[in-house]
Amino acid sequence: MTRILCNHPNHNYTLNYFSELFHCGKSTISEDIAIIRDTLLAFRLGDLLTTTGAAGGVRFVPLIKKEDSASYIADLCHELSDPNRILAGGYLYMNDILHDPHQVNQIGEILATRFMDNQPDFVFTVETKGTPVALASAHFLGCPVVVAGRDGQAVAGPLVSINYVTASSRRIQTMSITKRAIKEGSRALIIDDFMKGGGTARGMAHLLKEFNVDIVGTGVVIATKEPIEKLVEDYSPLMVLEGINEVENRIELSAADWITAN
Amino acid sequence: MTRILCNHPNHNYTLNYFSELFHCGKSTISEDIAIIRDTLLAFRLGDLLTTTGAAGGVRFVPLIKKEDSASYIADLCHELSDPNRILAGGYLYMNDILHDPHQVNQIGEILATRFMDNQPDFVFTVETKGTPVALASAHFLGCPVVVAGRDGQAVAGPLVSINYVTASSRRIQTMSITKRAIKEGSRALIIDDFMKGGGTARGMAHLLKEFNVDIVGTGVVIATKEPIEKLVEDYSPLMVLEGINEVENRIELSAADWITAN
Repeated sequence: MTRILCNHPNHNYTLNYFSELFHCGKSTISEDIAIIRDTLLAFRLGDLLTTTGAAGGVRFVPLIKKEDSASYIADLCHELSDPNRILAGGYLYMNDILHDPHQVNQIGEILATRFMDNQPDFVFTVETKGTPVALASAHFLGCPVVVAGRDGQAVAGPLVSINYVTASSRRIQTMSITKRAIKEGSRALIIDDFMKGGGTARGMAHLLKEFNVDIVGTGVVIATKEPIEKLVEDYSPLMVLEGINEVENRIELSAADWITAN
Repeated sequence: MTRILCNHPNHNYTLNYFSELFHCGKSTISEDIAIIRDTLLAFRLGDLLTTTGAAGGVRFVPLIKKEDSASYIADLCHELSDPNRILAGGYLYMNDILHDPHQVNQIGEILATRFMDNQPDFVFTVETKGTPVALASAHFLGCPVVVAGRDGQAVAGPLVSINYVTASSRRIQTMSITKRAIKEGSRALIIDDFMKGGGTARGMAHLLKEFNVDIVGTGVVIATKEPIEKLVEDYSPLMVLEGINEVENRIELSAADWITAN
């Protein structure tokens, strides 16, 4: 039962489902749910929420404790600050992290915990590097992902496109989504891997406005400290990049305030 | 313990780890492991493998039973055969499936079960649509993913690139990977979302050859029936697409033989 519940976060299972699967009474199931819940809570592995009534049941809610998030992000900052990660042009190599399922799941669970109460209907990202983190966050939130394409090519069917300018590179770019991917008036959580000027995130917000979608939050893995004024106002990075010093071969990266705050 | 083990498939946990976490003796842990194992096996939810010795411990191994894979793939074929999914040009809309974390996890678990014994060191894919399935497969296999870029842009650091021709479109394309992403002489499992002529998969194989990497398998979500002779010899699709009939508005899609075989 633990395996089934934890495997599908925020998915509601009826007591009937378990009672038929395990051939036992609903009261036994209820008692077991209480035991699993106590254990999950005691070891900070998540929570089980039960709802009553016709549509009632039980679902697993991931719930990373502040201290655990902070300690994981501190380790990640340390790992990402390795000078070998400095690439030509002052970029930071983090592809290995973004493509390691275990790391991506940890990051996704922290972001999901952060935005759980905002109840998004879907996670929105733009290809390509943000996709893994967006999927992991959506997995723990129990909702789907919509990925905007950087050009019309990878997107199928009737498109809605916008042009936008990234604040840092000042280049005009295009992003598109399939019309059928988004339901009018739903709630979106924007997730991306990296934010510098916020131009991409603002482009995403404009694209969503075409569908009357409500943006309930914006989460990024790393945001640069400069420029302090980003093109989006409200965003939650896990880490803040103060700078990459190519001369001294040093990366200055730290956990975001909301991660370290008590 | 179930939550921890199932959350990180194929990751080895020592008995010491659990005995310290739960403040109890190793014999208690061993007994509990036996109980969890019996339950997982009884309900076909996976297996626990224990190893002894200095590096010993216990790990969770996902293990989908043939019947369950077959029934899931049958449902997926039904869902994907909806005529509304036919796109202009005879394409099949499946972005929603590839971006639904629950569906992607199911697909990944089936592919991981298929290739578990081949013991890949990493999963290899090319951006963008294969990435989610590659990550999910890697999650269940307990290994990282390496994603080749379609152009040099999204890839960081020194590159290894090749040009290749997709058998179906006859267009020359480029794919690249960061040199540091791959260890010489390791074992790769190729995963992609769609295979028509096999040109992309062959390009991936050529790129891996530059690193003396051994390809232990190739898994794709959907392969087209035509051309029967693909540019790669050995591949395992989950589903086979016989054709999309735009005139009769019909999609002919079925489960692959190895999925339905007993």
